[in-house]
Amino acid sequence: MVTTSHGIVETPVFMPVGTIGTVKGITQQDLIADIKAPIILGNTYHLYIRPGMEIMKKAGGLHKFMHWDKPILTDSGGFQVYSLSPTRKLTHEGVEFTSYLDGTKHFFTPERVVDIQGMIGSDIIMPLDECVSYPSEYIYVQKSIKLTHRWLKRTADHFRARGEDAPKQLLFGIVQGGTYSDLRVESAKAVVENDLDGNAIGGLSVGEPAEEMYEMTERVVAHLPEHKPRYLMGVGTPDNLLESVALGIDMFDCVMPTRNARNGWLFTSNGVINLMNSKWKEDFSALDPDGTSFVDTYYSKAYVRHLHHSKEMLGAQISSIHNLAFYVWLIKEARKHIIEGDFASWKKDMVKRVTNRL
Amino acid sequence: MVTTSHGIVETPVFMPVGTIGTVKGITQQDLIADIKAPIILGNTYHLYIRPGMEIMKKAGGLHKFMHWDKPILTDSGGFQVYSLSPTRKLTHEGVEFTSYLDGTKHFFTPERVVDIQGMIGSDIIMPLDECVSYPSEYIYVQKSIKLTHRWLKRTADHFRARGEDAPKQLLFGIVQGGTYSDLRVESAKAVVENDLDGNAIGGLSVGEPAEEMYEMTERVVAHLPEHKPRYLMGVGTPDNLLESVALGIDMFDCVMPTRNARNGWLFTSNGVINLMNSKWKEDFSALDPDGTSFVDTYYSKAYVRHLHHSKEMLGAQISSIHNLAFYVWLIKEARKHIIEGDFASWKKDMVKRVTNRL
Repeated sequence: MVTTSHGIVETPVFMPVGTIGTVKGITQQDLIADIKAPIILGNTYHLYIRPGMEIMKKAGGLHKFMHWDKPILTDSGGFQVYSLSPTRKLTHEGVEFTSYLDGTKHFFTPERVVDIQGMIGSDIIMPLDECVSYPSEYIYVQKSIKLTHRWLKRTADHFRARGEDAPKQLLFGIVQGGTYSDLRVESAKAVVENDLDGNAIGGLSVGEPAEEMYEMTERVVAHLPEHKPRYLMGVGTPDNLLESVALGIDMFDCVMPTRNARNGWLFTSNGVINLMNSKWKEDFSALDPDGTSFVDTYYSKAYVRHLHHSKEMLGAQISSIHNLAFYVWLIKEARKHIIEGDFASWKKDMVKRVTNRL
Repeated sequence: MVTTSHGIVETPVFMPVGTIGTVKGITQQDLIADIKAPIILGNTYHLYIRPGMEIMKKAGGLHKFMHWDKPILTDSGGFQVYSLSPTRKLTHEGVEFTSYLDGTKHFFTPERVVDIQGMIGSDIIMPLDECVSYPSEYIYVQKSIKLTHRWLKRTADHFRARGEDAPKQLLFGIVQGGTYSDLRVESAKAVVENDLDGNAIGGLSVGEPAEEMYEMTERVVAHLPEHKPRYLMGVGTPDNLLESVALGIDMFDCVMPTRNARNGWLFTSNGVINLMNSKWKEDFSALDPDGTSFVDTYYSKAYVRHLHHSKEMLGAQISSIHNLAFYVWLIKEARKHIIEGDFASWKKDMVKRVTNRL
């Protein structure tokens, strides 16, 4: 459970990614009424570039700007600085990067990233960190987490020194350390020392094998306090979610359900469907007879396949609604089975089902 | 009023264009519940190319394929054959064209176009005609309408000779004649002779000045029976619709509300808004305070502008929903004022308002 200014979020929870003030292809109304998303994620980097903080401030924050009254978590923008900027320069002070829009130079420091997220007004904010790519040399990662930890300290100090008029926000820490168990443990301990509102695991699901991801997650979770939310950033497939819940993870975000939807991939409780496959061409059965979304029994596989083939927007829309509704449903089911006490057996069966290729 | 197998359509009516089995960017649910579209249009040419008639037949027709239980009108595909095919060859028999998808050659005859629309199962079908471009030589148009009239006769004969198991459909005729009043009148008379279920005016709104379009419409309408629906194909802007209703037109279709929506143009009862204009950048007022759609008071101009600027799908979706809801509302208002007897004065005021540039 996470208690925010915009309500309580029950965990485990999946957070749809609303990159630039919009979950791609989905109205806020459908997110609430059909998908039943309890919380969404916004990308600080994208929002900082466009619409920019001038408009964000005048709008009164992201909630008002996009008309979303439930909780929002924003990332720190760090990941996008590393992955999207044509050039970037990392110093002890912070990171300088170039806008992909107009080539202007910008500088993110741990303190500035707190302030930017203050203007966005999200409910949960994340600290600036360094995300190392996979694979990275041990020596590099060892140095990198020291920087990340120093930045986290600065982030926490700045966050706590904010005045009374600062928005009511939660601050999480981020554990890094690549795929090195000892560095992950070292990082977990250093992050936890800051006694923040929640703890996240970053830098996974960046290309390493799933087994390595689970191993790192397990090692880190052992050092994160149980009474605070544990958030595995950017993960993953339905079975990744279930396995990670089993390891003690409470929060997830991932672009996969919407990105794959735009390419005609559906995740269902009976397995994965690639609508571009010709086997669905004349399959007029419901998109997902067991699905919970209004699109699932209304539209047929053959119809939605036709939309994707014709590159019609509606194909991406229907598939995105379906996938997000499925992700949100799946993780709520996990919660139900945790409460009922039969999570382990349910998970074992469900992992088999969701990894099935239809 | 038009009575079809899928219900009665009150006129005047605006028909959203559902090109290839989808009104671009809009779910069937929103079309029904929010936009309240009483009838939509499908493009025979597009549906013939993709998904193709094999799938259309197996699906049990377009209504079932796209899950739309209200009336559908299909055009003949003629217009697209002329405008989209890389090559085409017009003969007395019909028109040969090349698929833009795979380069295969296809042949449309008046009879074949009736049969194809039989497989689609639309409620109102249109005959194959020749659409001349603007401007065209008098001599060419004079010859062209003779072909169109011969084809219409063949269409009607074939339509009436269909067996008992043919779907219950209405067949309209199409008046052509370019921008030549005498040819338009000649065509109207020839078309009406076939005593079909309704009569359409084609080949307008193809580049000629609005005044010429109104003049042609007025000349033709005078020769079309009042007790049968009169359909002005492919028209137009909100004021085009209102002026044409004044001239006696009952039915309209146009891609403008959705196409312009995708470029950030909104039609409202207070005028036209180009969201790409920087004046809306910090305008956090409702998209259309007087609008009838669920998007109108939920989203702000600045937010939807941001979506368009960021090339986010949701911008096109919200704007398309708004524009179609506005078109459908506008034409229903026209009906209300016709019934109340104050259409002329209402129209005069409304034309001023909808042509205002905000």
